[in-house]
Amino acid sequence: MLLNESPGLDRVRRLTAEAIGTAFLLIAVVGSGIMASRLTHDTAIQLLANAAATAGALVGIITMFAAISGAHINPAVTLASRALGTISRRDSALYIAAQVVGACVGTILANAMFDLPAVELSTQARTSGPLWLSEVIATIGLLLVIHGCVRTGRSAAVPYVVAAWIAGAYWFTSSTSFANPAVTVGRTLTDTFTGIAPSSAPMFITMQLVGTAIAIGLIRLLYPQPTPAAQILQESP
Amino acid sequence: MLLNESPGLDRVRRLTAEAIGTAFLLIAVVGSGIMASRLTHDTAIQLLANAAATAGALVGIITMFAAISGAHINPAVTLASRALGTISRRDSALYIAAQVVGACVGTILANAMFDLPAVELSTQARTSGPLWLSEVIATIGLLLVIHGCVRTGRSAAVPYVVAAWIAGAYWFTSSTSFANPAVTVGRTLTDTFTGIAPSSAPMFITMQLVGTAIAIGLIRLLYPQPTPAAQILQESP
Amino acid sequence: MLLNESPGLDRVRRLTAEAIGTAFLLIAVVGSGIMASRLTHDTAIQLLANAAATAGALVGIITMFAAISGAHINPAVTLASRALGTISRRDSALYIAAQVVGACVGTILANAMFDLPAVELSTQARTSGPLWLSEVIATIGLLLVIHGCVRTGRSAAVPYVVAAWIAGAYWFTSSTSFANPAVTVGRTLTDTFTGIAPSSAPMFITMQLVGTAIAIGLIRLLYPQPTPAAQILQESP
Amino acid sequence: MLLNESPGLDRVRRLTAEAIGTAFLLIAVVGSGIMASRLTHDTAIQLLANAAATAGALVGIITMFAAISGAHINPAVTLASRALGTISRRDSALYIAAQVVGACVGTILANAMFDLPAVELSTQARTSGPLWLSEVIATIGLLLVIHGCVRTGRSAAVPYVVAAWIAGAYWFTSSTSFANPAVTVGRTLTDTFTGIAPSSAPMFITMQLVGTAIAIGLIRLLYPQPTPAAQILQESP
Repeated sequence: MLLNESPGLDRVRRLTAEAIGTAFLLIAVVGSGIMASRLTHDTAIQLLANAAATAGALVGIITMFAAISGAHINPAVTLASRALGTISRRDSALYIAAQVVGACVGTILANAMFDLPAVELSTQARTSGPLWLSEVIATIGLLLVIHGCVRTGRSAAVPYVVAAWIAGAYWFTSSTSFANPAVTVGRTLTDTFTGIAPSSAPMFITMQLVGTAIAIGLIRLLYPQPTPAAQILQESP
Repeated sequence: MLLNESPGLDRVRRLTAEAIGTAFLLIAVVGSGIMASRLTHDTAIQLLANAAATAGALVGIITMFAAISGAHINPAVTLASRALGTISRRDSALYIAAQVVGACVGTILANAMFDLPAVELSTQARTSGPLWLSEVIATIGLLLVIHGCVRTGRSAAVPYVVAAWIAGAYWFTSSTSFANPAVTVGRTLTDTFTGIAPSSAPMFITMQLVGTAIAIGLIRLLYPQPTPAAQILQESP
Repeated sequence: MLLNESPGLDRVRRLTAEAIGTAFLLIAVVGSGIMASRLTHDTAIQLLANAAATAGALVGIITMFAAISGAHINPAVTLASRALGTISRRDSALYIAAQVVGACVGTILANAMFDLPAVELSTQARTSGPLWLSEVIATIGLLLVIHGCVRTGRSAAVPYVVAAWIAGAYWFTSSTSFANPAVTVGRTLTDTFTGIAPSSAPMFITMQLVGTAIAIGLIRLLYPQPTPAAQILQESP
Repeated sequence: MLLNESPGLDRVRRLTAEAIGTAFLLIAVVGSGIMASRLTHDTAIQLLANAAATAGALVGIITMFAAISGAHINPAVTLASRALGTISRRDSALYIAAQVVGACVGTILANAMFDLPAVELSTQARTSGPLWLSEVIATIGLLLVIHGCVRTGRSAAVPYVVAAWIAGAYWFTSSTSFANPAVTVGRTLTDTFTGIAPSSAPMFITMQLVGTAIAIGLIRLLYPQPTPAAQILQESP
């Protein structure tokens, strides 16, 4: 927050960052999925392109907005931050609202860029025990990666590490790692490669919340307190 | 600028950097497109190779020339820098001229390396509302990424972040993210995978300028002033 | 180790990190192999996806756990650290046990996420001189990469350098570079793309140990002593 | 060089680093080419795998050996360093010898890992004006990238930037960017995907030397003197 401006303007800036950031994330996920499915019939190549484009976008989005809002762009991240005491109750609610709005706007823009109806509910059911287990594991992994950086003084690495991890997780979970309730909502609005039927979304989000709860426990066990800056400077050459 | 040399030599050096940098960018974009379309019939694999090669080249080009000219290699970047007051009016005009010349030379060299006529006007029309929307969004994203680094004290990350972002944007916009007027001009001179018909270029460039204008407003909102170095050192562990 | 807690809790934390880290590694290796073989018939695309997903996961895993346990997640790494005197005899034995347990749990979770039996012994024989030579070279390379970072004051680079190296080594060795005894054990428990028949595992592990021994000698020759921190700060701008 | 050892041992260590480093480079280039051509018939996928594996290996090799020998692993790099006065005449000759020996050993090891005769002269002619132009441009680009880092105080970035650049250059030059006389010699010894007929090698090497000479001139123009460390610390936040 700048010295000569009101706290309100600072909050507007942070919520704008969360909304635009999540919109760009959905543009990347949905848009690259559409592009890929138009260019090839090989599903593996489609997923490679989708994963790589998402990773590239994540590097950019997190770098763009980290200094403004922390670049959560994911309600699971915001809830974990709330549980760990690094964001206020009010701000966390506003962040999540901004993320969901941004996710929907991003999906609409992706549809528009590819000449599709602005909103088309997905018809792709994603419902099974293995998929739900995948979402739990995917969310645990994502939150451990983020807090493994943040709580050991390596926040500057988050854009690269999260991007690399998510690109991998597209492949090593059977659900392709949504791991993000706002993304899950946004992806109900497109009937394309990355869509999810609205009826499948609630269980995905539930499993993401289960993963969030487990991750918070693991973070408390593994990173009991943030590393003081002095110690970091001594240890990382 | 070295202490014992004239300002003129420094300007020559900077314009040389912009010209060679943009030439290498077009060599990368056009050359890898030709290589890819010769090696496979799968359009998705072609675009994967084209995006990856462009990203790899961007890492190198921006690293090579950042310390000399700032490595704009893009008139949209130069115009945004002019609007934000970090380059003089005269230098910005010279930069743009150097970029356009470099783009044309780069395309000619790419054609020559692949045994094609030095110049062959593209016959590939790229004209539609969704494509134009894509160019607006692509340019906004690129400029936010760059200034999200520069104005928060992370210029050293620009080569990697821009490369990652552009590789993603090749996939998540329907236009494959030209986002660069000099590149657009250069790509009219090759009738290959990455070419654009001269008649389609003006609207692409117009949309890139619209995106530039929107991005300048967003940059002013989101990054109201460059972060002082002292603050950066305290915050980034 | 925190000031106000027992040494035992610190050890629990480190062993938990080794176990979870190795579990995530096997989830990544085995899971992405299953996903890839379901999505395409092109074996090269399968290996590209498998290598990329493993690399992405390694960036995350090493970043997550480096500050806790050193993120060995590989008995060859632990044995080399023991030979070089940076870990106690007792801890190295416990680390290796945690890694093997984690590897088995990870494989089981990967099988479960893809709706396969929890354990299915692999039927894929991997037995030949060239494969064994590959494992020796792969292990030498991996250990040189790690200690080339650690012993010259660049530990912060390990996640990226190891990930890049391993993704390459999947392709440039005929064995696809297991280079990790715990991973070798874990991969006997899945009859999928990345599995190895239990009868082939002992020679793979033996060759990895041969590679470890050679690597220890090379490390002593090439990096005779860790670079002092002061020297590092002076040299790396 | 350690305080308590002879200058001779230090030289042995540096030449060992150059030899092993170049051997690993050829293992990566040749080995991944063999693997790729065995796994798919799509030439573009073969080149993607070959480029990615080379890049991954380069990150590792340069990181491993930079602190010992500077990780030239390329006579063109050594010759440019000689011209720029950063290596002695005697050392540069020894470096080049070590690189060529390492390249040949690496190719032999790659052949052996893939169950091929230790040495098989390549029958793949690579002879044409566009290929030769490619080698000139490829060598200029590589040397500018390296010295653009080194002479502006960013040596720590070399492993990543060179790897990214070379992976791109595999695609954007028609010769797939050998850009390395030692690699060119090594690749005559394998009749596989990445081989080059011995009769084609001399012109490739000649063009690489032409590129080296042009690059030296450009480096002197663009980076007239190494940036002093003090200035670097002030400028890079």
